[in-house]
Formats: sequence, C-alpha cells, structure tokens
Amino acid sequence: MDMHHETQLDKDLRELNDRLMHMAAVAERMIDQAIKELVNRNEQYAPEVTAEEGELNRLQIEIDERALAMLATRQPVASDLRAILAATRINSELERIGDLAINITGNVHTLVQQPPLKPLIDIPRMAELARKMVDDSLRAFTTRDIELARSVILADDEVDALRDQVLRELLTYMMADPRTTERALALILVSRHLERIADHATNIAEDVIYMAQGRDVRHPKTPR
Amino acid sequence: MDMHHETQLDKDLRELNDRLMHMAAVAERMIDQAIKELVNRNEQYAPEVTAEEGELNRLQIEIDERALAMLATRQPVASDLRAILAATRINSELERIGDLAINITGNVHTLVQQPPLKPLIDIPRMAELARKMVDDSLRAFTTRDIELARSVILADDEVDALRDQVLRELLTYMMADPRTTERALALILVSRHLERIADHATNIAEDVIYMAQGRDVRHPKTPR
Repeated sequence: MDMHHETQLDKDLRELNDRLMHMAAVAERMIDQAIKELVNRNEQYAPEVTAEEGELNRLQIEIDERALAMLATRQPVASDLRAILAATRINSELERIGDLAINITGNVHTLVQQPPLKPLIDIPRMAELARKMVDDSLRAFTTRDIELARSVILADDEVDALRDQVLRELLTYMMADPRTTERALALILVSRHLERIADHATNIAEDVIYMAQGRDVRHPKTPR
Repeated sequence: MDMHHETQLDKDLRELNDRLMHMAAVAERMIDQAIKELVNRNEQYAPEVTAEEGELNRLQIEIDERALAMLATRQPVASDLRAILAATRINSELERIGDLAINITGNVHTLVQQPPLKPLIDIPRMAELARKMVDDSLRAFTTRDIELARSVILADDEVDALRDQVLRELLTYMMADPRTTERALALILVSRHLERIADHATNIAEDVIYMAQGRDVRHPKTPR
C-alpha cells in the first residue's frame, strides 16, 4: 500500500467535492433569484444570473478535467471510482439546473410586460421544495447519507403534485378568459422548469445511492 | 506494450459501442411510435413503448456496469478513457430521450379524447429532425466523425425555430377560442418534449467532439 498515493487521491476527491458544493451553491442562488424576480415582478437579477451561468459552465468543465486526470493518473477503484464518475454526472445535472433558472427568467420577461394574473402561492412553494432538493442531494453526496438521498427522491412526488395543481388552476384561467392565455402559459412553463430542476436533484440523489451502495436504484421496476 | 491487453480493451469498447447503438435504435423507434400515435390519433403503440422504456433502462445500467468494469480493470488512457466516459453520458441522454417519448404518448392520451384541433405539419417535422439528430449523433460517436457531430449542433437551431413557430400559432388558437386551450397546450408540450430530445442529441454531439478532440466545445462562449 502506497500511503502517499492514497493521500493524494483523498485530497483530489476532497477538492472535487468542494467544486461540486460550490456549483450547487451557485445553482441554488440562481433558482432563488429567478423566483424573486417572478414574485417581485422585476428583472433586477438578470445580469447576475447570466454571470452565474458562466460560472457554472466553467466549473462543469473544471470538474470534468479534474475527474479525467484522476482516472488517468490515480487508478481509483471501488467506491473512489464510483465517486469520481458520480461527480462527472452531478456537474452536468447542476449545469442544467442553472439553464432552467435562466429559462425561468425568460418567462419572467414575458410576465412583467403585463398586469399580474394572480397571487403566486404554489409556484414559490415548488421553487422552495426544488431548491431544498438540490441542497439535500449535494449534502447527501458529501456525507454519503443514503437516507437523505432517499428523502430527496420522495420529495419529487410532492413537486409533481404541485405541478399538476398549477396546471389545472391555470387551465381554468385560460378557458375562462383568453386574455390570460399568454401569462398563464408562461406560469405553466415556470412550473415545468421547476419540476425539471426537481428531476435533476432526484437524478443526483439516485447517483448518490448508487455510489454509496454500489447498486442501481435508478430503475427499481426494471427487470434485470 | 502488452498486445493482448490492448486487444481486450478494443473488444470491450466495440461491445460498449454496440450497446449504445442498440439503445439509440430503441429510442428512435419510441420517438417514431409516439409521433405516429399523435398523427394517427390512436394509442396503438402504448404497450410497446412501455416495454421499450424498460429495455432502455436495462441497457443504461448494463452500459454503466461495463464502463465501470473497464475503468477498474483495463486502466484505459487518453482517447479510450474519454470514449468510456462519453459512453456513460450518452446512455443517460438516450434514456432521457425515451422518457420524453413516453411524455409525448401522455399528451396523445389527452388529445385523442377530443376532436382534432388542426392538421399537424410543424410537429411531425420537428420529430423527424429530432430523430435524425439522435441518429446522426450516435453515428458520429461510432465513426468519430466531428463534422457530422457539428451538423447535429447546427440542426438544433432549426428545431428551436420550429418550437417558437408552434408556440406562436397555438397561442393564437387559444386566444381566439378558449375551447381549444387544453388541446393547444398538449400540442405545445409535445413540441417542448421534441425540443428537449433535440437538446439531448446536441449534448451527445458535444460529447463526441470533446471525446475526439480532447477539448470542450460545450460552452464555447465561456471564458476559461
């Protein structure tokens, strides 16, 4: 056993983890800012959110390059190998979460051109749930906490239920008054973007369980 | 140089490639079937599409397990290492494409309950483009054809333009007659699912270029 070699891999893994946690913090801030724009009906965060997207892209590439270098030079095995592969999946998920926050600011741009349609209750609730799922999934990765990862997967059902509720309510608005159509559709798309953010957090949680247990929970109903 | 070792890795890579090509064929068939259901206004393929989703899930897991085993036992470097990592990304993209085809059949289920809203032109065109992008991105992976991969990335703009056109037209329907709202929304969602399929094909094409060139094209505008 080469102790120095082992220590270097541990250090590399810790740095990889730090970069992922930083990516998650940026992605969560983007969600918060997009929803604040939606609720406050202004586009104050637009320049910041654009800069943050660049930061996520840069971090995604850095993590991929670090992972490749680790695979090529450190010959990791077993749980270390799975952790590195998980990192190269999780960085993609976080980058896409940032893209979805950008999409939400696009819908806000449509919404602020017109009077408010209705007070927003379910959508901010969805956003809070989705943001917490992202946060929990990354904490589960860092601490190898399988129970926390499972709680993320369960929370996804709650987000899906809110998405259906938002759709039903906004369909009613559109059918009652066609002048609401464009705004209602923009809000439906916001709810879809939030649902997809929750889906990405669920993907991360599934990767964490796979990594920690060495078995696949992503398709529990699939015959092997 | 251990020639036997090198040959075994080549064989493993060829098998990995075969599994990915098979996944792509299944995913493309699912897109075709979902759109045929939409155009023909029946749900004839529903049981088959469900079975194909199971097949995609099974293949995704198999490819991950093969890739892990190759990384752990064959110590691949350089372009082989990048090809294996690309395979573990591409299988996720293909699995999600299958999920999106399933989502389309859900929208078809809504649409067949009501009379047809309009003849469908742009949506089948989007589906054909998206399916071809999936096909081309996998052929680019197999043949390491960077030009073909670039053509996939360019085609994505055409899909996005069709998505905007579909949205504009269907908004007009909804605003003119609220009784069309539910059907128009279902068609808008179909166009979004197709757009996302094209996005996944674009992700695959970007991975192919990264793999072949050893540099990242995914965020060309990102300062490094």
